[in-house]
Amino acid sequence: MSLVVVGSVALDSVETPTETRENVLGGSAVFFTYAASFFTGVKLVSVVGEDWPAKYTELLNSRGIDTSGLDVVSGGKTFFWRGRYLDDMNQRETLDVQLNVFGEFDPKLPEAHRRCKYLFLANGPPAIQARVLDQCPGTQLSVADTMDLWIKSTRPELDALLRRVDGLLLNDGEAKLLAGEENLVKAGHAIRRMGPRFVIIKKGEHGAMFFGEHETYVMPAYPTEDLVDPTGAGDSFGGGMMGYLAEQNDFSPAALKKAMAYGTLAASFAVEGFSLDGLQRVERADIDRRMEQYRRMLSF
Amino acid sequence: MSLVVVGSVALDSVETPTETRENVLGGSAVFFTYAASFFTGVKLVSVVGEDWPAKYTELLNSRGIDTSGLDVVSGGKTFFWRGRYLDDMNQRETLDVQLNVFGEFDPKLPEAHRRCKYLFLANGPPAIQARVLDQCPGTQLSVADTMDLWIKSTRPELDALLRRVDGLLLNDGEAKLLAGEENLVKAGHAIRRMGPRFVIIKKGEHGAMFFGEHETYVMPAYPTEDLVDPTGAGDSFGGGMMGYLAEQNDFSPAALKKAMAYGTLAASFAVEGFSLDGLQRVERADIDRRMEQYRRMLSF
Repeated sequence: MSLVVVGSVALDSVETPTETRENVLGGSAVFFTYAASFFTGVKLVSVVGEDWPAKYTELLNSRGIDTSGLDVVSGGKTFFWRGRYLDDMNQRETLDVQLNVFGEFDPKLPEAHRRCKYLFLANGPPAIQARVLDQCPGTQLSVADTMDLWIKSTRPELDALLRRVDGLLLNDGEAKLLAGEENLVKAGHAIRRMGPRFVIIKKGEHGAMFFGEHETYVMPAYPTEDLVDPTGAGDSFGGGMMGYLAEQNDFSPAALKKAMAYGTLAASFAVEGFSLDGLQRVERADIDRRMEQYRRMLSF
Repeated sequence: MSLVVVGSVALDSVETPTETRENVLGGSAVFFTYAASFFTGVKLVSVVGEDWPAKYTELLNSRGIDTSGLDVVSGGKTFFWRGRYLDDMNQRETLDVQLNVFGEFDPKLPEAHRRCKYLFLANGPPAIQARVLDQCPGTQLSVADTMDLWIKSTRPELDALLRRVDGLLLNDGEAKLLAGEENLVKAGHAIRRMGPRFVIIKKGEHGAMFFGEHETYVMPAYPTEDLVDPTGAGDSFGGGMMGYLAEQNDFSPAALKKAMAYGTLAASFAVEGFSLDGLQRVERADIDRRMEQYRRMLSF
């Protein structure tokens, strides 16, 4: 089934305790589409500037990712982010953010995109996410991501969005902030009562929690020694998850659970390299092999 | 099979953001024995002062816990700990510690205890833990717990102990400190190379990780909304785990994995009340019911 993602495409400069990479391919929608492309065709809607290297578009196209919704603004500059991970790799500092053309992003979806059945609203202003929803009235499953900035600065718009989407993905700190509740289990249920049918709280190296009407569960992250760069882990999780759901064209509780596992594994590969390096090294068969290990790990 | 635990028995005063309890039953060996008692007979070796309420001994005896190794020192005072949990319940401050008779604890195991097959050395000075090991030459499975204090202050003694025990249980912060490594997967393997056949890293609300020669896995904590008091969660984990292993008289990789799950569930009940309240409310059948839910949660 058709899957559309609307979100940021960026150039990232990333510093870890051991290495630094300048101007590498980044942005939530990039990690999302690449991870989703292991499972299904995916259409990217975003905006970049004229500094955008054409080779990056070619890389995405080589994975079958439809970039016809990627707007290249002449005279503009691509969204830029510079961040530094601290020693334990679980905390990061943002050193520089230049929204550039992404700051003016007002997505107009091509006609074919508007008929999508699976829609992912990557992190962005809730009002913009809502305008995308308006353009896709026939969506079967819409899932949004958000962040602390919107929780703090545009709460009414976010509340309105939560009443319209089927699912919400956010990290643990954001969930506590949104729910005003320190216990993550209580926070997850509280957020579900704000509107979405399900809520997924991403806990980084500690995995992810799912909250549905009849089900609450936790899945641990796949334990990897080769943690190189956590950037994009959450978006790769989203891409693996939504990619699998769209491939199966099924979002029953059982499919959602398996999708959570695929999201977990997509994230585990993503963090094993800078930018898309970790995901570029693998094929669907590698993901399925790791899935077997993951299943074995969780059975006793 | 016979299981012996040597460690602290204490009176705790615990403050959480919502409630305070004064002078309740605590100490690592107490949580451990109580959790283990759902599975097997367990012998407690510890020391208390003459302020020790006899009703607490009766409570332990009512669970079939053998307290013949609990030394009551006349004129002495019981180990006392006062702590406060911060808003997120994952951090705590120690407000007062009075080692009292536990500061002079030099365990002499009764003859019957020395023939135990399963031995748990709860957190304590490594030199004391080693003297207990000396008294139990026929032990089939010995597992120790430790803490940052011993890692920092008595490293040579701890290193010597690690070469003698079969398993080591410690929390995530302690594992990073002991291994000098921020990545928990690397830290777990590094500690295993210091001697123990297996290492278990407890991550509190995020579950526990297992590191063996051929296996590395993570188990999430059971997600509970009813987090009342985290005190004793790690020791209840140890008790559930060792209790199950001793009951089965099996410490094969498969048994260890199931034991990790039982430890996880024992901890989940322990945190649902102050002191032993959470564990006192349940029977083995409740643990087995939660085990079915936990298994379902982890299968997809």
